[in-house]
Amino acid sequence: MCRSLIPPRTLKGFRDFLPETMIPREQLIDTARQVYRSYGYLPIATPALEHEEILLGKGGVETDKQLYRFADHGGRSVGLRFDLTVPLARFTAQHLARLGLPFKAYHIAPVWRGENTQRGRYREFMQCDFDTIGTRSPVADIETALVIHDLLHAIGFDRFTIHVNNRMLLTGLLERLGLAERAVAILRALDKLAKIGRDRVADEMIETAGLARHDTEKVLQLVETTGTNQQILTEVGRLVRGSAGGEAGVERLAELLASLQATGVPEGRIRLDVAIARGLDYYTGVVFETTLDQLPAIGSVCSGGRYDDLAGLYTHEQLPGVGASLGLDRLLTAMQELGMIDQVHPLAPVLIAYFDPHRLQDYLQIASSLRAAGIAVEVYPDPKRLGHQLKYANRRGFRVALIAGQDELAASTCQVKNLQTGTSNSVSLADGTEQLVTEIHRILDGP
Amino acid sequence: MCRSLIPPRTLKGFRDFLPETMIPREQLIDTARQVYRSYGYLPIATPALEHEEILLGKGGVETDKQLYRFADHGGRSVGLRFDLTVPLARFTAQHLARLGLPFKAYHIAPVWRGENTQRGRYREFMQCDFDTIGTRSPVADIETALVIHDLLHAIGFDRFTIHVNNRMLLTGLLERLGLAERAVAILRALDKLAKIGRDRVADEMIETAGLARHDTEKVLQLVETTGTNQQILTEVGRLVRGSAGGEAGVERLAELLASLQATGVPEGRIRLDVAIARGLDYYTGVVFETTLDQLPAIGSVCSGGRYDDLAGLYTHEQLPGVGASLGLDRLLTAMQELGMIDQVHPLAPVLIAYFDPHRLQDYLQIASSLRAAGIAVEVYPDPKRLGHQLKYANRRGFRVALIAGQDELAASTCQVKNLQTGTSNSVSLADGTEQLVTEIHRILDGP
Repeated sequence: MCRSLIPPRTLKGFRDFLPETMIPREQLIDTARQVYRSYGYLPIATPALEHEEILLGKGGVETDKQLYRFADHGGRSVGLRFDLTVPLARFTAQHLARLGLPFKAYHIAPVWRGENTQRGRYREFMQCDFDTIGTRSPVADIETALVIHDLLHAIGFDRFTIHVNNRMLLTGLLERLGLAERAVAILRALDKLAKIGRDRVADEMIETAGLARHDTEKVLQLVETTGTNQQILTEVGRLVRGSAGGEAGVERLAELLASLQATGVPEGRIRLDVAIARGLDYYTGVVFETTLDQLPAIGSVCSGGRYDDLAGLYTHEQLPGVGASLGLDRLLTAMQELGMIDQVHPLAPVLIAYFDPHRLQDYLQIASSLRAAGIAVEVYPDPKRLGHQLKYANRRGFRVALIAGQDELAASTCQVKNLQTGTSNSVSLADGTEQLVTEIHRILDGP
Repeated sequence: MCRSLIPPRTLKGFRDFLPETMIPREQLIDTARQVYRSYGYLPIATPALEHEEILLGKGGVETDKQLYRFADHGGRSVGLRFDLTVPLARFTAQHLARLGLPFKAYHIAPVWRGENTQRGRYREFMQCDFDTIGTRSPVADIETALVIHDLLHAIGFDRFTIHVNNRMLLTGLLERLGLAERAVAILRALDKLAKIGRDRVADEMIETAGLARHDTEKVLQLVETTGTNQQILTEVGRLVRGSAGGEAGVERLAELLASLQATGVPEGRIRLDVAIARGLDYYTGVVFETTLDQLPAIGSVCSGGRYDDLAGLYTHEQLPGVGASLGLDRLLTAMQELGMIDQVHPLAPVLIAYFDPHRLQDYLQIASSLRAAGIAVEVYPDPKRLGHQLKYANRRGFRVALIAGQDELAASTCQVKNLQTGTSNSVSLADGTEQLVTEIHRILDGP
């Protein structure tokens, strides 16, 4: 009989994760959680599906188009979340009384976008957000930068740059020039600076925001300020002088830089960069982007900033806050490219060969006592010939194989094979597994 | 101006998780991962969305009805996974060559079902599956039981029962009675035994499976066998004698019980229970259900069993295996009811009061060195009055508050307040934060 099979395949833009990619992914998420927790951020979770009215229109025209929308069993219009910011806003508005303020949350979960996969984008990817809600304090800005720094460092990156700006600089300048109400169109143009160059950005500001040519010059002068962080602070301070918002922005940046230095963040890792704008009018204060010095082309791996009003669509309460989002997929790609992901070893380093079927309970007992001693161990399930089992052990990357046939067990011993060097030692089991544990640790901790 | 707001609400049957429920949930998942890993299971992940043809018809009529289905942006028929078994089957068939056999996987992810919420069911819930694929070995059966046992024990349960059966007993008996081809209808009837009683089950077997009354008696006699595990083994052995499958089933159960005993699983935690059938014809060998002795009504918190053919719909390769699934939501409910979830403390136990705005960098430095010493710490973001900050600390469940104004810092000291007792100690910061770390540990580790 030849049944017709359903072809086993994933949807375009969706991925399976095999253990070799899933293990570093889980490690990365663990590290993020650990760093978030060390700063007092607490975990939250929201549903994958939301009422369509919660999601629609919250991320712009493009995002609306990419939204996975459908009618559920009750005929309700629903959608899969496309980011974690909109669900966080809905969540905070809904549970405000129980949460209390300030509220520090982290949120790690997949999001879905019907992206054009030709651009190499995935339609399902993981976001790792953290936010401090309900305070305008510079402390929360500083801690956000510290978390980004600690996170990259804890993951194992050494050479990275956190680019910092404050939206108040540009807002202040525009106020002084009487152009405050054109900020959105100007930001939209400035966002393209790296891509299309200063001349075309100036043209766009004239066309879409109706700026005079000499005002485009002032705006470009601000965002093109270069030099050391201190030089930029001085120069930008001069450019926004007389604007209360602009001066406050300079002051907050100065405090941020001083505080990061005081807590031991190497100076080279923080760069004032007045050109980074981070999209549209959501952000109102400090903004962050993080690049890897060896792979700048990969783009920002951790971005965020301060906002004035997280949940204005869902509550009359104005909720200021600051947060950022770790780009998990980009980071994993980068770690692969930089050779930062070790050759994958199985999570259990020890394989017990299933040698003699009459001795199964001995193997199970040894496995149990090793687990009790904190050593993860797998018992090969079938009494196949030893060569076959050792081939499996090598292919899977086990570090140690335990081999004990009738002779060994009758003599209360066990062969401990170092699978990297190929050498074996005989270890006594006469007094329990203590010696065995020592020998395994010697191999695992060895060079 | 009074904007009209979008009401912040979740969909019926969907839940937000606030930190007080999310923290134990994360802990539970961590524990599951740790136990799975200690046995050599490796993590995998599959997409939330699958081609509809992968999902449809794989879980029965009811499941098809509950499937969240829609057309995606490319007009493809897609659906949200309703369990992790079907995606695992598709995954294994698709990646078989790369995975190799035997393959041990764990898979922790949400699934979606458009359930009737009036039955108290959720439409989004987490599953935690683990499976050993590609072997018929009893070792894999035994390890599955050991994982269930270690898992419940590691979570903190003391009084629980793993109910064990083997489908081969009934299959063997039916073979002997010449009723093998009616097994599905008979199993379907037997599954209702606890609910509708033996008489109505007998009637159903006569009606739907066409059994003779005296055969229903034999079937019921088998599944109603009671006594100690040893008594049941003997009695069941007598009932299936002469059927090769039935006798093999008895032998495997005997080996399972002996092996669990040999590895130190307390005898009272394992109960032979010939009545458990676990649904339809998917399982072919050992089956497991796990109940909490103090809350039997909550149902099984970890169930699974052995199957002959995981992925027959997607590949001609026959893949036998064994696995089980942890009922995360039920377990959390049980832990809450049994008072096993501690009063929620924030993940950062130490709050640094923001006392003197001119001393912010001192507070940030203290926070950094405490984090470097492994102590999670939050800096209150605003220099509000101390009473307000201490109220926040108490409401959030912080254990320790650090208070340092200008006088303390000028004298290189810091007040360490134990928030449970209300007492304070002054600690010197003259030689760094070493003394501070000691004092904090004294409070955190204290009674």
